[in-house]
Amino acid sequence: MSANDPGFKAALEEAKAGASEGGIPIGACLVDKDGKILGRGHNMRIQKSSAILHGETSALENAGRLPASAYAGSTMYTTLSPCDMCTGACILYKVSRVVIGENKTFVGGEEHLQRKGIEVLNVESKECEELMARFIREHPEDWDEDIGGGK
Amino acid sequence: MSANDPGFKAALEEAKAGASEGGIPIGACLVDKDGKILGRGHNMRIQKSSAILHGETSALENAGRLPASAYAGSTMYTTLSPCDMCTGACILYKVSRVVIGENKTFVGGEEHLQRKGIEVLNVESKECEELMARFIREHPEDWDEDIGGGK
Ligand SMILES: [Ca+2]
Ligand SMILES: [Ca+2]
Ligand SMILES: [Zn+2]
Ligand SMILES: [Zn+2]
Repeated sequence: MSANDPGFKAALEEAKAGASEGGIPIGACLVDKDGKILGRGHNMRIQKSSAILHGETSALENAGRLPASAYAGSTMYTTLSPCDMCTGACILYKVSRVVIGENKTFVGGEEHLQRKGIEVLNVESKECEELMARFIREHPEDWDEDIGGGK
Repeated sequence: MSANDPGFKAALEEAKAGASEGGIPIGACLVDKDGKILGRGHNMRIQKSSAILHGETSALENAGRLPASAYAGSTMYTTLSPCDMCTGACILYKVSRVVIGENKTFVGGEEHLQRKGIEVLNVESKECEELMARFIREHPEDWDEDIGGGK
């Protein structure tokens, strides 16, 4: 899985958009089995004072209402390993594959996804890591809030 | 756990509010360790064309941004056994207890919650069951969509 993948590039664009808005720089993009983007978005904790609009949940929300079949064979691209809530959302909608930008910053529900038969790939993107390293350096309390205090 | 519990009554009020708006009649209420309501809400799939505003996630969103400590010892009351996404959200924010109205309509992540050390109680409310039975009879496809096609 390369960083040139369109779905990953869209997720990274969303993360950068979040950073430019002063938000937590995590982005995501949901792509269907034919490669069409269903929805994309980024963490809105700071921009909208939201406790549930993470990158992944924003992408699902922006995809709008879809029949269950629309998610079949889909891929959720996300610049950071998905938290328990976003992991659950991918399982709920039976996303087939989750491509993460990195999991150095935070290790989410990767094992839980795999136990549910969802493929997990890691781009190991330095760029994604640096986006988060900078944010956490500058806003440690916002990050701690976003992951419910962490493990 | 009785149906007279204030947190449960608030969740049921929210479910009825959802029903009166023509929505999926599932409501939730997040109560802190001291019994104060942090947030309450109901499923907004139909009202807002939302793929992520379930009862539980609406209650979390309506509670607004809170430090991780605010959720310690909290209880999520929800009129229906929580789906994978809402189960993950309760785990992310380290909710201590989940009180469900019923799980005849749908069995969600109760075991996963318990594996994570979260207490799960079931009110076994006929009223909650009937709210859902009526909705599913009238709108089976909306319900199927809300649970990503089900198990
Ligand atoms: Ca996030
Ligand atoms: Ca719901
Ligand atoms: Zn998340
Ligand atoms: Zn749910």
